[in-house]
Amino acid sequence: MPTRYFLASGSSEGYTTLNAFDGALLHAGIGNTNIVKMSSIVPPHCKLVAPIALPAGALVPAAYAAITSDTPGEIIAAGVAIALPTDENQNGLIMEYSAKGERHKIEEVVRNMAMEGMKLRGWEIKDLQSIAIEHKVEKIGAALAAVVLWS
Amino acid sequence: MPTRYFLASGSSEGYTTLNAFDGALLHAGIGNTNIVKMSSIVPPHCKLVAPIALPAGALVPAAYAAITSDTPGEIIAAGVAIALPTDENQNGLIMEYSAKGERHKIEEVVRNMAMEGMKLRGWEIKDLQSIAIEHKVEKIGAALAAVVLWS
Amino acid sequence: MPTRYFLASGSSEGYTTLNAFDGALLHAGIGNTNIVKMSSIVPPHCKLVAPIALPAGALVPAAYAAITSDTPGEIIAAGVAIALPTDENQNGLIMEYSAKGERHKIEEVVRNMAMEGMKLRGWEIKDLQSIAIEHKVEKIGAALAAVVLWS
Repeated sequence: MPTRYFLASGSSEGYTTLNAFDGALLHAGIGNTNIVKMSSIVPPHCKLVAPIALPAGALVPAAYAAITSDTPGEIIAAGVAIALPTDENQNGLIMEYSAKGERHKIEEVVRNMAMEGMKLRGWEIKDLQSIAIEHKVEKIGAALAAVVLWS
Repeated sequence: MPTRYFLASGSSEGYTTLNAFDGALLHAGIGNTNIVKMSSIVPPHCKLVAPIALPAGALVPAAYAAITSDTPGEIIAAGVAIALPTDENQNGLIMEYSAKGERHKIEEVVRNMAMEGMKLRGWEIKDLQSIAIEHKVEKIGAALAAVVLWS
Repeated sequence: MPTRYFLASGSSEGYTTLNAFDGALLHAGIGNTNIVKMSSIVPPHCKLVAPIALPAGALVPAAYAAITSDTPGEIIAAGVAIALPTDENQNGLIMEYSAKGERHKIEEVVRNMAMEGMKLRGWEIKDLQSIAIEHKVEKIGAALAAVVLWS
């Protein structure tokens, strides 16, 4: 059961779309770990911390949004949002969103998504956290935003 | 090594396709966990149980099929099937399938897929389990079927 | 933290694309395990070994490339490459690539991707390992190449 979490974001150009994704992970500070994608909960009592220097090669669960593009000039963005409940015995909800478009728009959408998810649960929101990043593609680019869990 | 498994299915409308997917996970009883997607084996001696109330935020391996649609009126369905071998020292095989169409058709396809997978292994089938669900899209909908592993 | 890794590849025809993928996993020797996809690091001091007979149903982290096709006559290929650094306290980098085309071309691309990833890190390469496989589709086919981690 993870006990800590942090938010991270990055963007990069790359030799291929996967290289750009790798560069975005590096820029986000998590490029030398083994990210395992999960859906999308912050456990109760899990604490927000500043980004942690994770051990190289560690298996790390994360919820993330990522987008790549090979259309020069295109603006791409990725964001994640976390809605935390008033009742601390309940879990938080993570939402991820990426699309063509500017950071502030993508961040607004993903924050709304997290609020809607809490509405669906019938839970009151205590706090809404988010991070997003945009990237203007030169040749081949990637943008990534993540919530990383850790014990 | 997981020791128990259960079948679950759910469907939902949502604010976005990811919100609908989140709603389908909630409807299936696994919406407040961190699902990690895996390919697609029931370990030997792993026991079928009734759905378990999993701890909020736990990392939970699952094999699942999911489909989302934003075409009003469309019928979407998702199913999973498990073929278990006569030899209890061998593992079971999970197959996943989702598509436009009705539940009974998707469930028939995924059951055939599991039988074909056992034929490929040259193993005799003792039992064939499956679950499937359909959803008629109002605005934005999702259907999900899963095999969830647990220890 | 994984301590050993091996390379594996396989290809197969199948009843559906997922059955072909299952067959490719079997051909690669990892078809009766629960593969969990991860991004894409070989931890420092993790040792290359010959393929291991993994316990049936075990949860196994792997980085892999896979491609399926239902176009008869099409040649598909998948490859993975690992660039290992001169400094043994740093991690290796795995890259994955799959596309229509012949094995030698896909393997060349994925090796270049791994070299570019190390260049991005500013790390000198000590060794470059790779595996790739091609498959000529009869009806429905799959090709898969993987780096499997294990403790």
